[in-house]
Amino acid sequence: MTTEVKPSSRERLLEAAATLIYRDGVGIGVDALCKAAGVSKRSMYQLFESKDELLAASLEARASAYVATLLPHTEDSGSPRERILHVFDQLASEAAAPDFQGCRFLVVQIELKDPGHPASRVAQGVKENLKTFFRTEAEQGGASDPELLARQLILVFDGASARAGIKADTPTGLITPTVTTLLDAAGVH
Amino acid sequence: MTTEVKPSSRERLLEAAATLIYRDGVGIGVDALCKAAGVSKRSMYQLFESKDELLAASLEARASAYVATLLPHTEDSGSPRERILHVFDQLASEAAAPDFQGCRFLVVQIELKDPGHPASRVAQGVKENLKTFFRTEAEQGGASDPELLARQLILVFDGASARAGIKADTPTGLITPTVTTLLDAAGVH
Repeated sequence: MTTEVKPSSRERLLEAAATLIYRDGVGIGVDALCKAAGVSKRSMYQLFESKDELLAASLEARASAYVATLLPHTEDSGSPRERILHVFDQLASEAAAPDFQGCRFLVVQIELKDPGHPASRVAQGVKENLKTFFRTEAEQGGASDPELLARQLILVFDGASARAGIKADTPTGLITPTVTTLLDAAGVH
Repeated sequence: MTTEVKPSSRERLLEAAATLIYRDGVGIGVDALCKAAGVSKRSMYQLFESKDELLAASLEARASAYVATLLPHTEDSGSPRERILHVFDQLASEAAAPDFQGCRFLVVQIELKDPGHPASRVAQGVKENLKTFFRTEAEQGGASDPELLARQLILVFDGASARAGIKADTPTGLITPTVTTLLDAAGVH
């Protein structure tokens, strides 16, 4: 008895879409995606209604790994302040990779320029979850204005990620002092 | 004696490129740009070596108006703290426009994914000038670490602009408290 390990056409398309769209942008063609996945266009359109749906599904497939990488592992790992800083440490690690081009869930929204696009909606959901994490931790840490602190933290997250992605700056020596200043001002010690 | 007011082919191409690339992204084709400008492809290639050069020139043509809109008018208008806050007030005004998609000099770099592209280089120069403004004001305002404060301010600028551009947030009630917290922590009162 053998275990089937070969990825399905669907999995190969999702992987190719995630990789190539991140590398080259949302304008990449269906031909290039199918070629990279080793799947015919006919098969692709049997699996996905459109390139837009493939793009949305490829982001969806990456969402849980993204959240698992960023967020602290258990409910009990550290204080709210430590748990918030953990997310930014993870961002700094990600941003150090040579092929880092910014958070894919931000970049895709900037490129699509359409908040109603199915892929934009997936990306919005991922970022809303991150903001909810910040807000919950802000509340538990006794922030004077948890909603403001959550908005500030995700602003710093997206700003640092965008600037690292275009090689304008790196998170080193920047994110930690910025986040700690905001946490201090909000009373989250 | 009459004054020639009709824009030249070059001006129409620069305007069309700035408008359409901001609206639709850097993937827009040469045909669409020429059609919008009312210029033949032959004429375009007589004026610009490539679409890349047209894109770079269109950003260059917008650069001085952008800087003039953002920065305070004279050397004497207010304290460093006020002059820094002025830039963020201007960003908030810009971001309130219904067709705002984020700072074009950030967006184009995210889309091109190539810091060596001629248009990326133009955008880098514009953003470097903005950072130099922040750094100069930080120094004159007695910031404890002017370079860190300048990095923080442009991070907030790009983060707020990106999030407003994708309609994830607005600068209202967000930028001013964030910037004042950073200015306070740096000792710029």
